[in-house]
Amino acid sequence: MPETKIKKTDDFNEWYNEIVELADLCDKRYPIKGMNVWRPYGWKLMSHVDRLIREEMIKTNHHEVCFPLLIPESSFKKEEEHIEGFGSEVYWVTHAGLNELEERWLLRPTSETAMYPVFSLWIRSHADLPLKTFQIVNTFRYETKQTRAFIRVREIHFFEAHTCHVDFEDAENQVKEDKEIADRLFKKLSLPYILSKRPDWDKFAGAFYTISIDVLMPSGRTLQLGSIHQYKDNFSKPYEISYETEDGTHANCHQTTYGMSERILGALIGIHGDNKGLVMPPEVAPVQVVVIPIIFKGKEKPVFNACDALCKKLGESSIRSHVDKRDITPGNKYYNWELKGVPLRIEIGPKDLEKKEIVIVRRDNSDKRSVSQESSVNVIKDELDKISKNLYGNAKKYLDENMHRVNDIKKAKNLKGIIELPWCGTDDCALKIEDILDGNTLGEPIEDVKCIDTCPVCGKSATTWMRYAKTY
Amino acid sequence: MPETKIKKTDDFNEWYNEIVELADLCDKRYPIKGMNVWRPYGWKLMSHVDRLIREEMIKTNHHEVCFPLLIPESSFKKEEEHIEGFGSEVYWVTHAGLNELEERWLLRPTSETAMYPVFSLWIRSHADLPLKTFQIVNTFRYETKQTRAFIRVREIHFFEAHTCHVDFEDAENQVKEDKEIADRLFKKLSLPYILSKRPDWDKFAGAFYTISIDVLMPSGRTLQLGSIHQYKDNFSKPYEISYETEDGTHANCHQTTYGMSERILGALIGIHGDNKGLVMPPEVAPVQVVVIPIIFKGKEKPVFNACDALCKKLGESSIRSHVDKRDITPGNKYYNWELKGVPLRIEIGPKDLEKKEIVIVRRDNSDKRSVSQESSVNVIKDELDKISKNLYGNAKKYLDENMHRVNDIKKAKNLKGIIELPWCGTDDCALKIEDILDGNTLGEPIEDVKCIDTCPVCGKSATTWMRYAKTY
Repeated sequence: MPETKIKKTDDFNEWYNEIVELADLCDKRYPIKGMNVWRPYGWKLMSHVDRLIREEMIKTNHHEVCFPLLIPESSFKKEEEHIEGFGSEVYWVTHAGLNELEERWLLRPTSETAMYPVFSLWIRSHADLPLKTFQIVNTFRYETKQTRAFIRVREIHFFEAHTCHVDFEDAENQVKEDKEIADRLFKKLSLPYILSKRPDWDKFAGAFYTISIDVLMPSGRTLQLGSIHQYKDNFSKPYEISYETEDGTHANCHQTTYGMSERILGALIGIHGDNKGLVMPPEVAPVQVVVIPIIFKGKEKPVFNACDALCKKLGESSIRSHVDKRDITPGNKYYNWELKGVPLRIEIGPKDLEKKEIVIVRRDNSDKRSVSQESSVNVIKDELDKISKNLYGNAKKYLDENMHRVNDIKKAKNLKGIIELPWCGTDDCALKIEDILDGNTLGEPIEDVKCIDTCPVCGKSATTWMRYAKTY
Repeated sequence: MPETKIKKTDDFNEWYNEIVELADLCDKRYPIKGMNVWRPYGWKLMSHVDRLIREEMIKTNHHEVCFPLLIPESSFKKEEEHIEGFGSEVYWVTHAGLNELEERWLLRPTSETAMYPVFSLWIRSHADLPLKTFQIVNTFRYETKQTRAFIRVREIHFFEAHTCHVDFEDAENQVKEDKEIADRLFKKLSLPYILSKRPDWDKFAGAFYTISIDVLMPSGRTLQLGSIHQYKDNFSKPYEISYETEDGTHANCHQTTYGMSERILGALIGIHGDNKGLVMPPEVAPVQVVVIPIIFKGKEKPVFNACDALCKKLGESSIRSHVDKRDITPGNKYYNWELKGVPLRIEIGPKDLEKKEIVIVRRDNSDKRSVSQESSVNVIKDELDKISKNLYGNAKKYLDENMHRVNDIKKAKNLKGIIELPWCGTDDCALKIEDILDGNTLGEPIEDVKCIDTCPVCGKSATTWMRYAKTY
C-alpha cells in the first residue's frame, strides 16, 4: 500500500503540510492566506477536543458564555500593556454598508476587552464571586510569519476561560485548578507537556505572570498549546471590576484566564502521526473503530450483517464505529483509514464468521490478532485503552529523551529539543543565550526549580533554571 | 410572588424586552448596539436548539464544516443579485494592524460567497454529488431598523446548510427533505409554523425561489425563523461549480440552502412565555426538572438525600434536573425557576418522605399533584411529554384562530394575524394590498393553494392566494 508521499521521518514539516490535506482535515485553498476551511473530518476531530474541554469546564463549575466578536476601539484601549501587545495584530472594521463607522471596531484577538466592561456590571458583591466563565469562539490575529494549518493561522478556533476572584490567593487557587485540568485533558489526548513560567518580557500583555503549556514536536521545536494567566488586579483596575466585601468596603477583583486553541490538533497530528498518516488518540478519534467486510461476490449479506451487528453492539457501549461498505478493495480501505488515523480496524470475512471470530488490527503498532465474537466489545475497549497509553508512552519517551538540563552552553549547542541552563535572573543573560542557541526562552520550570550553580553568561550565582528551545 | 413587571398580556413587546434580561438569557448592555452577550442560561438554551438541528443534519447525511468568517470582496461580487441584496448590509474589514489591506474583506452575512469558490474545487465528478454540508456560525448584518434580542441583531447565531446536486430534480428532493426536517424540528420545539413561497421581489438575493418558515407571535406579527432556498444553477454558473456526468459531458450543479437563526429563541420565548416568565419546551429546557427541598432547620439531611437520589435517577433516564439547595425561601425559588421556564417543579418535604411521595407542579398550567416516589421517573417523563403537547396545542390554536382566508379587503382590514387574499399574480396588486393592510406579503401557501376567485384590486381572475401580515 502507498504511504504518504513525504515521510514523517524524512521531513517533518513537509509531511505535516501534506497530511492535514490528505487526511481531509482542512482545505488551505481558501483565498485568504491563513484562513483555512475546516473539512468535516477535521471539524469532527476539533469538536471532540472541544467536548473534552467542555466536560472539564462543567466539572469545575465554569459557565459557558458567548461574547460579541467585535470590540469598540475605546473598550480595547483601557489597559495600556494589552494594547501595546496586540495593537499591531488586530483586524479593523471601519465601514458598515456604505457608511464609515463613528468608532472603529476590532475583531477579537482574545476577549478581555470585550468581557471586562460587562463583568464590571455583573459583579457587585462578594456573593457574586468567584465568577467562572468560558467560551469557545473564533478569534483573529494578523500573523505576518509563515502560516501553517492549525499551528499558525489568522482565524483561530479558541477556548478562553475568564475568572474573577475576591483576592490574589483565590485567583492562585484557580491557577492550581487550571493545572489540574491540563493534567486530565492532555492525558486523554496522550500528549505529555511541560509547564513553564514565562519570563517577564514574554508574558501575556497585561498579565502578572503567564504559565505556558508547551509540547515538543518531532521536529525538535516546541509548540505552545495554551497558557494560564494570573492577572492580579491589572485589568480589574482600568475596567473597574470591583465588589463590596463582607465588611462593606470595596475591593478590585483578581482575575485569571486560561487559553487553548486549535494548536492542540497540530500537536495530535504531529506527535502521534507516522509515515502512514494520522494516528488518533481514541478519546477524540471521530471514528474509533472501522469495520471492513472481507467479501466475496454473492456472499456479502452474512458478512455485512455481522459487521452491522458488531457496530450496533459497539454503539451501545458508546464506541464510535463505522462499517466501510464501499465497492473498493479492502487494501484501499486499509490505506484510507490508516491515513485518517482510526485507532482500530476490524476485519470480518466468511472464514471469521465460521470460526465466530473477528480480526483486530491496531493502528499504532500494526499488531493483528483474532478474537472471539463473544469477547469482541470488551477486547476492543481494552485495546483502545492500550493504544491511548502506548501513544502517551511513546510521546513521553521522546520528550524525556529530548529535555536536557546542562550547565554549559557549548554542550547545549549540540543538543536538540528543550534545554535547561542555570539562570541568574537578568534579561540580558537569557537573551544572549537565545542568540547563541538560536532559540527562544520558554520560561522557568514551575516544579523542580532549585538550582545551585552559576550563570553560564555572567558567571554570577544562578538559583533557577531557564528553558530554551526552537519554537513554532 | 411577584410576576414580571410588565404583563405579557398587556404589552407583549415590552414584556419580551424585559424577560430576555430577567431570565438571564442575554445582556443588552454591550457597547455595540444589536450585539448582545449570551449569558450562560441563554447560551445553554441555544445549544440545545443547535443539538436538535445537528441531530437532524446527521440523520439526513449532512456533514458539518466550518468556513472562514471573512470573505474577499472579489469572491463576494461574482453573483450580481446577491451583491445587490447584501451590499448595503455588510461590515468591511479594511485594515490589519497599521496596514491597509490590498483588498477589502467583509464579515459573512451568509456563506454562499465563502463556500462556493471552494465547492468548485471539491466537486469534480457526479460521484462527488450530492454534496450536503452545514455549519453553525456567527454571521453579521448591519441592521438599521430597531434591534431586538434574538429577533433583530447585528451578530447572528446562524445555521446554514448548503447542498449541491446533479440536477434540478435532485435539488427539489432536497427541498422536500428540508421541509420534513422543519416538521420534526419544530414539533420538538412545540412551534406550529407556516411555509410560504415568497413572491419574486422578496426572495433571497440570487435564489430561484425561497420558502419561508414563519411563526405567529402573540403580538399578531409574524416572525420568520428560517428559509429554504432553491438556487437552481444561479450560483453554480458564476462560481463555476460543475461536474463530469456519467457520459463524460460537463454540467453545472443545482444548489439549495437552508437557513435558521437564533430567532428560534425569540419564538420560544414569545410564543410559550406567560406573565410569570419563560415556559421552555422540555426538549430544549436547560433544566427540565427542578427539585425544591421543603426543609425545616435541622431536618435538611433526609430531604436533601431524597432530592439528590431523585436527581440521580432522573439523570440515568437522561432527564436534566437540578436540586436548588440555596438558603432562600421555597417561594423565592418557585418565582426564580418559573421565570426561567423550567417545565416541571418537584417539591419534597418531610411529610412527603413519610408518605413516600413527591409533589409535581407543571409550569405550563400550574397543575399540582402528589405521586408515589416509586413511580416518579415514569410520571415525570409522561408529564414532560404532556407539557410539550400542551404547548404545541395552545400555540396551534392561536395560529389557527388568527389565520384568515377572505376575499374582501374591507373584511381583511379588521382582522389580526395572517390574512390570505386571492391573488392575480401581479406585483402591483400585492404591493397595493400591503399598503392598505399596512403589512407585508409573506408569500403563497405551498399547500392548499387552489383559488377560484378574483383579485380584490384589479378584479381579474385569481388562481392562487397571497398571505399578508405585519412582520418583525
